[in-house]
Amino acid sequence: MNFKILSTDINSRRGIIETKRGTINTPAFMPVGTIGTVKAMSTDELKEMGVEILLGNAYHLYLRPGHDVIAKLGGLHRFMNWDLPLLTDSGGFQVFSLAALRKIDKNGVHFRSHIDGSLHFIGPAEAMKIQGILNSEIAMTFDECIPYPSSYEYTSRSIELTTLWAKKCKEFQNNDQALFGIVQGGILKDLRKKSSEEIINIGFDGYAVGGLSVGEPKELMHEIIYFNAPLLPLEKPRYLMGIGDLGDIMKAVEAGFDMFDCVIPTRNARNGTLFTSSGKISIKREEFRSDSTVLDPDCNCYTCRNYTRGYLRHLFLSKEILSMRLNSIHNLFFYLNFFKNMRESIEKGTFREFKDRWDNIFQ
Amino acid sequence: MNFKILSTDINSRRGIIETKRGTINTPAFMPVGTIGTVKAMSTDELKEMGVEILLGNAYHLYLRPGHDVIAKLGGLHRFMNWDLPLLTDSGGFQVFSLAALRKIDKNGVHFRSHIDGSLHFIGPAEAMKIQGILNSEIAMTFDECIPYPSSYEYTSRSIELTTLWAKKCKEFQNNDQALFGIVQGGILKDLRKKSSEEIINIGFDGYAVGGLSVGEPKELMHEIIYFNAPLLPLEKPRYLMGIGDLGDIMKAVEAGFDMFDCVIPTRNARNGTLFTSSGKISIKREEFRSDSTVLDPDCNCYTCRNYTRGYLRHLFLSKEILSMRLNSIHNLFFYLNFFKNMRESIEKGTFREFKDRWDNIFQ
Repeated sequence: MNFKILSTDINSRRGIIETKRGTINTPAFMPVGTIGTVKAMSTDELKEMGVEILLGNAYHLYLRPGHDVIAKLGGLHRFMNWDLPLLTDSGGFQVFSLAALRKIDKNGVHFRSHIDGSLHFIGPAEAMKIQGILNSEIAMTFDECIPYPSSYEYTSRSIELTTLWAKKCKEFQNNDQALFGIVQGGILKDLRKKSSEEIINIGFDGYAVGGLSVGEPKELMHEIIYFNAPLLPLEKPRYLMGIGDLGDIMKAVEAGFDMFDCVIPTRNARNGTLFTSSGKISIKREEFRSDSTVLDPDCNCYTCRNYTRGYLRHLFLSKEILSMRLNSIHNLFFYLNFFKNMRESIEKGTFREFKDRWDNIFQ
Repeated sequence: MNFKILSTDINSRRGIIETKRGTINTPAFMPVGTIGTVKAMSTDELKEMGVEILLGNAYHLYLRPGHDVIAKLGGLHRFMNWDLPLLTDSGGFQVFSLAALRKIDKNGVHFRSHIDGSLHFIGPAEAMKIQGILNSEIAMTFDECIPYPSSYEYTSRSIELTTLWAKKCKEFQNNDQALFGIVQGGILKDLRKKSSEEIINIGFDGYAVGGLSVGEPKELMHEIIYFNAPLLPLEKPRYLMGIGDLGDIMKAVEAGFDMFDCVIPTRNARNGTLFTSSGKISIKREEFRSDSTVLDPDCNCYTCRNYTRGYLRHLFLSKEILSMRLNSIHNLFFYLNFFKNMRESIEKGTFREFKDRWDNIFQ
């Protein structure tokens, strides 16, 4: 994996990540393909709108269908019919947010599946083994994700564990697979600094900031975003995990982050909340009943090229599968296009104007 | 509308229906686009697999979003982004199978919506008006669909009403819209004969047989299929309504029917029952867990070109939307291909062999 910064605008960076399976333009948005599919979408549709990398969840795929099954079916790329780059998370976040009855020791976490209650164990060695079998281009270290609020003491002990696990992950790094380290530390700046230093000392191909957007006030999250970014090496990709609100993303890009993943565009789509160049709209509203205009006249997606707001409202109210399809296509296209324009603004040195304009619209 | 028979094989017919919006090869399968979408499918996908005509349901579209809304949105073709031919049913079948609290008089039916209980009235005049606004290429007369079993007396009075309504529909026939008459009469041969004669006397662009597959034993249904077909004019298209089991379809084609519609391929797809060249399979079965082969090696559909049985099983068990998409694509493609091969067998004079082969597979 190779990362190049092509241009900068103050702290925001416009770069490329090169992998054997393709190039990723940064700042990059990675749609989430939780259990082997980006919900409601085909991989052809994702390619066509310019998606360059997808995220797969090791925890979900480990439980269902099982990484052994995916191995037999030729690895995650073949399994889900996606031949461009994949990033897999380590399962850390899901073990701590979805699984029940966790018991943590220095080797990893015992937990019960959120699907059937069965007992499992994942630690750094297991997380690396699973991700090796999934055969993603970028793997993530296994970390402890603590809730908000957590005490200083607990957070302090937790980042020690995360550092210990990161070292183990590095030891078990798979051939031909980039590995990103994850910085934790909650909302405590000195612990964020300590965690950053420890993770950087181990040495990874890229660095991620985890443990945000877990319930803390937005202002605190923004503070940590701006605080943590400059603590990470300039020459490596910086990934802000799980943050997908466009306002938050612009702040993070301003701080110097390069990579993002989030279910917001697809989840909102399924709930009928659609992004447009004049703000978010709820497609179910009565005013759209006989509206023969397209969702967003400035949008060139498949949905906006072919369907009226009236039709989209009808599909949504009728709970048709096509509603989730057309809405997901539109929202993802909107995100991809937003990132493309954001990258161009960095190239032109107009990122600040870009950010001001969109902050106004999404306020 | 123009109908030509290109070749016959005993009583089976291979023909074309020409409309302003395109040609339909017969025997034709019409996927059902109940409320403005074939469930889980895009119209591009339907076109790509060779669908030449879709069915829309007047009853459903009248209730939701309302034909007034569809009028404002440019008619049903524009509404659902389908520029090839459409056939609309009249609403008769749904009024009698879905709606509550029906009160029938000679002008039509008072009923309550199955969605919100609101009161409505549809008769022949209303059915023609709705279908005119939907602007389909082929409209259907408004008929009474009686349940099985029904007494001789009730059936006899019912076909009188259906004849009366058919006359009214003919009076109100829309410009530039073909109109098909519907024959009723339950499983009573003399009443089927009487209804056929009366409907033919009025004179329509095509003739449909309705009121079958409403609970009667299969043997009785087959008897009526073989009995009713030759009572209809040779030179007009013959449409067997709502019958979609492939075994039944082959019998009906053998009897001389030309057009079919059914939700079987899409509904089965959503339930995980998939058609293959060696029979039906349930994709959820344990044996497919790590199966790296494609669904049907003889199939060239998008699903079979790109995905393994193991992946399809995983998507189905995970209740992913993509499961319904890929399964619907496959089953519809299978049906379209089945009809294509059936048409070729009629051209070659080998329909009997075609039928024997498939009867064996689907037994």
